[in-house]
Amino acid sequence: MYLEIFGQIKKQLGQFDKWFDAAEALAASKGFNVNVLLDLRLSPDQFPLARQIQVACDTAKLGASRITGKEAPAQPDTEKTFAELRDRVRVVVAYLDGLTAADFEGAAARTVTQPRWEGKVMSCADYFIEHVTPNFYFHFAHAYAILRHNGVSIGKRDYLGALSQRLP
Amino acid sequence: MYLEIFGQIKKQLGQFDKWFDAAEALAASKGFNVNVLLDLRLSPDQFPLARQIQVACDTAKLGASRITGKEAPAQPDTEKTFAELRDRVRVVVAYLDGLTAADFEGAAARTVTQPRWEGKVMSCADYFIEHVTPNFYFHFAHAYAILRHNGVSIGKRDYLGALSQRLP
Repeated sequence: MYLEIFGQIKKQLGQFDKWFDAAEALAASKGFNVNVLLDLRLSPDQFPLARQIQVACDTAKLGASRITGKEAPAQPDTEKTFAELRDRVRVVVAYLDGLTAADFEGAAARTVTQPRWEGKVMSCADYFIEHVTPNFYFHFAHAYAILRHNGVSIGKRDYLGALSQRLP
Repeated sequence: MYLEIFGQIKKQLGQFDKWFDAAEALAASKGFNVNVLLDLRLSPDQFPLARQIQVACDTAKLGASRITGKEAPAQPDTEKTFAELRDRVRVVVAYLDGLTAADFEGAAARTVTQPRWEGKVMSCADYFIEHVTPNFYFHFAHAYAILRHNGVSIGKRDYLGALSQRLP
């Protein structure tokens, strides 16, 4: 389950490239600096676009790292441009690409914790299903919604990516 | 995997109640009819709130039905109020509540199709991971984002719901 769903998360992260292309196309057609989009938010007490993208990346990367114990690449949240965010996404996709089924062996017996949980733990399975997956999609969909709200021309296919469909 | 993740989706759907409570509290404090929120959208070519909620429900319900073969309750998309949407969510949660591990037996050997796929099929596992889960979270997070964008006071805990945390 882990490997298949992290594979899906990796595929979703790959879709950022298309969204960023569409943002750049809108900016070019309207003559604004594309990077102004990175500061926009849907609500004053929600994260702006850049942070939504960073946190989507971190949720995937740190989720996999906590479950497998495989160290994830450090990323200091300094990106100010789409070009820098493309690099961040690429590093996370490469990290996820390096995971194998063997990395998840033994996860059933391990637990995960975070400083803010005040000493409490979650099983890897609960953490993955209740925390990693909903949080990843939260920030991924919010990044999408911020772009759509600001006129970037992307659609559901750009969100989902290619589906494994075949003739019966 | 199916039962655990549909259990999570069921838990998420249960969070709508808190979101709707918060929407009603905002409407009461500002003196507007809460149901005007249901027509609001983040982009003119995205679904309004009511439809986001309906589609989140349908993605869960029809996803489970297509994978298990268990008929899902029909819901004609006629809701115009939060009260009616609460009923819709309740029916879907009850449907998901009735699923058991046995319902998913044999899913590995079955495929799923939809009219718009022009005769193509997906394995149940691919359909679940590539289509049901990302689509569910897409519409669920968009409903959340529309509420936040319009000043409804909800936070990440209302999105995630209770976590299965315990002392080690």
